[in-house]
Amino acid sequence: MNEHDYAVIMAGGSGTRLWPLSRQNRPKQMLRLIGEDSLFQVAVKRLEGLFPPERICVVTVAQQVAELQAQCPAIPAENFILEPMPRGTASVVGLAAVALQQRDPQAVMVILTADHFIRNVTLFHFLLRAAVRAAQDGHLVTLGIEPTFPATGYGYIQTGENLGRYFGLDVLRALRFKEKPDEQQAQALLKSGDHAWNSGMFVWKAGRVLEELALHMPDLTAHLKTIAKAWATPQRTQVIDDAWPQLKNISIDYGIMEYASDVAVIPAAGLGWDDVGSWDALFDVLPADVQGNILSGGQHIGIDTHDSLVYIDRPQRLVVTLGVKDLVVVDTGDVLLVCHKDQAQKVRQVVEQLKRTNPEYL
Amino acid sequence: MNEHDYAVIMAGGSGTRLWPLSRQNRPKQMLRLIGEDSLFQVAVKRLEGLFPPERICVVTVAQQVAELQAQCPAIPAENFILEPMPRGTASVVGLAAVALQQRDPQAVMVILTADHFIRNVTLFHFLLRAAVRAAQDGHLVTLGIEPTFPATGYGYIQTGENLGRYFGLDVLRALRFKEKPDEQQAQALLKSGDHAWNSGMFVWKAGRVLEELALHMPDLTAHLKTIAKAWATPQRTQVIDDAWPQLKNISIDYGIMEYASDVAVIPAAGLGWDDVGSWDALFDVLPADVQGNILSGGQHIGIDTHDSLVYIDRPQRLVVTLGVKDLVVVDTGDVLLVCHKDQAQKVRQVVEQLKRTNPEYL
Repeated sequence: MNEHDYAVIMAGGSGTRLWPLSRQNRPKQMLRLIGEDSLFQVAVKRLEGLFPPERICVVTVAQQVAELQAQCPAIPAENFILEPMPRGTASVVGLAAVALQQRDPQAVMVILTADHFIRNVTLFHFLLRAAVRAAQDGHLVTLGIEPTFPATGYGYIQTGENLGRYFGLDVLRALRFKEKPDEQQAQALLKSGDHAWNSGMFVWKAGRVLEELALHMPDLTAHLKTIAKAWATPQRTQVIDDAWPQLKNISIDYGIMEYASDVAVIPAAGLGWDDVGSWDALFDVLPADVQGNILSGGQHIGIDTHDSLVYIDRPQRLVVTLGVKDLVVVDTGDVLLVCHKDQAQKVRQVVEQLKRTNPEYL
Repeated sequence: MNEHDYAVIMAGGSGTRLWPLSRQNRPKQMLRLIGEDSLFQVAVKRLEGLFPPERICVVTVAQQVAELQAQCPAIPAENFILEPMPRGTASVVGLAAVALQQRDPQAVMVILTADHFIRNVTLFHFLLRAAVRAAQDGHLVTLGIEPTFPATGYGYIQTGENLGRYFGLDVLRALRFKEKPDEQQAQALLKSGDHAWNSGMFVWKAGRVLEELALHMPDLTAHLKTIAKAWATPQRTQVIDDAWPQLKNISIDYGIMEYASDVAVIPAAGLGWDDVGSWDALFDVLPADVQGNILSGGQHIGIDTHDSLVYIDRPQRLVVTLGVKDLVVVDTGDVLLVCHKDQAQKVRQVVEQLKRTNPEYL
């Protein structure tokens, strides 16, 4: 990477996807799901050898910035870009683009998530290098993940003709972005052979994405221009605070990627990428013992216990499982979740219910 | 009942059968499993109209007596008979017999358990009245429960010829006491038609049982005689304390009932008796909702949850169950048990393991 290339880690999610472990004030990226490092720390370490800390930016919200800074003190404080509140990834990208253009008009942005697993870091670096080259040629590049099963939890991108080769990797035109499909649609998309999972990772020049925002999101753009003018002044924070509540909550995918020209996909096979958006997804990324059990924290006694995940957040807490299979047990200070693996997606229903009735548990 | 008839409630069990709810210092009979009353309180209230509190005795251990007295303040303090440590029901019966004979040489003892459910209290009273009459004729009477399924968790008593009718109830000779059978034996015992479950409830004259103890348990009897001599002296407690560690830990069934003459059974059908010795047994006695769930304490959200028992010991604790069936979830301050209903008997294995490795959880 050269001195105009920047990583932008989106780390402001309010994360109740792994509830009750992830909470409003303790989102997924802060969790130490495996080993010593949080997902955020893993996301930063993953960039070692690619970006120096001075060129890693983090977009987050005020409530989370202190913890994130503490977790990665090497990243300069001024690289933390604060949203007053989460307003979708279109706003995140716009704000980061403004920030980077102020700093470096030639900036190329590598937008990354903080809450994904990636097993093959070597390939990941390789893909990002290719994507940055393609971005320097004006493409709006997304990383597409080769689907390995008919996932209903991810969006899909239909790929078209080859736009060129960068570092020996094919960069394809992105034809269409598709929302999370149902089971039948997912089967068809998997069979089609020309669809990739939308990884939520994007690479482009800051100026280039601002052009597309200007075309397709004029309201956001108007606010971004006001913010850009105030950037070097003491009013910057106030201007952002005033603008944010007025923004539409929309993802960058649906804000511009559907309409922009020059949208490209680099399909990635073998990246070992995982969104880990639910407890069942964790089964795919955490190492299991010979009984297929994934055990983390606390004390556990399992008799006739198979293919189950037991997460305990206190060292002295004893959890005994007897005659259970395919079970997720998440034991936190105030909440216990006991869930069949196949029903883990329904945790969202619980979270929705609690928003109305008992927000103290969120 | 007349003034020579006494109830003796055995309430000294150290109870880890409903672990982790029942603990060494909080045995089953102290638990408020349903409603406001503990099983001990239920056992005492069950005697209303049959025995006045002054003729209800309680055999327990020092660690439990304060709590039991607090739960049933109407029972006079001197009616609490203390064992230095649990030493099997033969010792309990012997000690209670000595205590009652000192008080009333004509005493008839109705030995009752404190940790059983009995639904039909009217029938229970009727049975005890008949048993007391039979005991006055010198019989050693046990209450036998008509088996309704091939239980492997109870002992069985084989019944023989009719010894007489008391209040219109047949009193049968007890031929043999059988230990807990295996599944196949239990099937055969159920089919035989001449076996009753051993309820652990006995009725006899104090003098009569001391005679049988003298014949079949001479060691225990020697200690009991020393205790009897010291009963009215300041040395009573010291003498009991000295004797107790030397006693064999043996149940009254195997100590004398196998050998004694005049052992009688009153078979009871429709008593609604339940030992509730394990979590799965609780399913039979606690009321379930339309989904078949038994919920107690705390906050519970169940989605697609069926035929499960969720016991929470803290009011603010939230337990969410998602897509589970036939599950027992017992959530206490330091221990969580998640157990398939059909494996509830294996809780004993866990308790055995903890005795060796982590007694702090017992």
